[in-house]
Amino acid sequence: MTEAPANLHPAVAESLAAWHKMVETVDLKALEKIVHPDATFRSPMSINPYSPAPALILALSTVITVFEDFTYYRQFASEDGLNVVLEFSAKVGDKTVKGIDMIQFDEQGLITDFEVMIRPLNGLQALGAAMGAKLGEKMPSYKVKS
Amino acid sequence: MTEAPANLHPAVAESLAAWHKMVETVDLKALEKIVHPDATFRSPMSINPYSPAPALILALSTVITVFEDFTYYRQFASEDGLNVVLEFSAKVGDKTVKGIDMIQFDEQGLITDFEVMIRPLNGLQALGAAMGAKLGEKMPSYKVKS
Repeated sequence: MTEAPANLHPAVAESLAAWHKMVETVDLKALEKIVHPDATFRSPMSINPYSPAPALILALSTVITVFEDFTYYRQFASEDGLNVVLEFSAKVGDKTVKGIDMIQFDEQGLITDFEVMIRPLNGLQALGAAMGAKLGEKMPSYKVKS
Repeated sequence: MTEAPANLHPAVAESLAAWHKMVETVDLKALEKIVHPDATFRSPMSINPYSPAPALILALSTVITVFEDFTYYRQFASEDGLNVVLEFSAKVGDKTVKGIDMIQFDEQGLITDFEVMIRPLNGLQALGAAMGAKLGEKMPSYKVKS
């Protein structure tokens, strides 16, 4: 992973360090501490945004169990130090994917918007299928009354 | 479009301004002046990279004719000022897409690597179909000898 840009807002730098720690230990229990209650998640699969915070936390907690060999590379920041892009690679089954997390923070260091993009097409399709299966497991099942 | 990060390498800032001008005027004739001869293009569709420079120039010259209502938003830079991410939205037929250009420059301001990611899935599929059709038009056609 490259050096974090020096112009990051101090609160953002702190949250980003916490995020990297969570990803490294594959433990997102502390995620809600750095997510704004009204945060939005933008999936690589669908144009429709998901919110508020619990939807974002469910999406990220699920995707982290789908990716294998997850590795971060370059880090990028906006001029105001409140927006970052993190480049990564991972495996989804036998497919290699490249991707980015594009994250917007507020001045308290809370995530307000988290957008994920993935390439190539067959990797994105594999991710969609794997996410659907994992989310299905987490949903309550209902029986139709007979 | 947000302000360009102040830590951009001066040669990169110059090439980036030239790039924005080309996109704005939908005229990529001057693109080769800011592309390194050995540059690599990474498509949102395929994991295989395309190179050298003529492959990158063909890909970008084609995609610019497929996107409509193309608009740039946030700009991000790496700490070394040689790598940038540009956020955009566009229309591909009736589909809305979000995307990023992740561009690596050398210290002469030449593009050495240009990676594109697109979301969501149906927008990426529409882009792939439209690109295939456009590239097909540009390829020489051969007749089978009878």
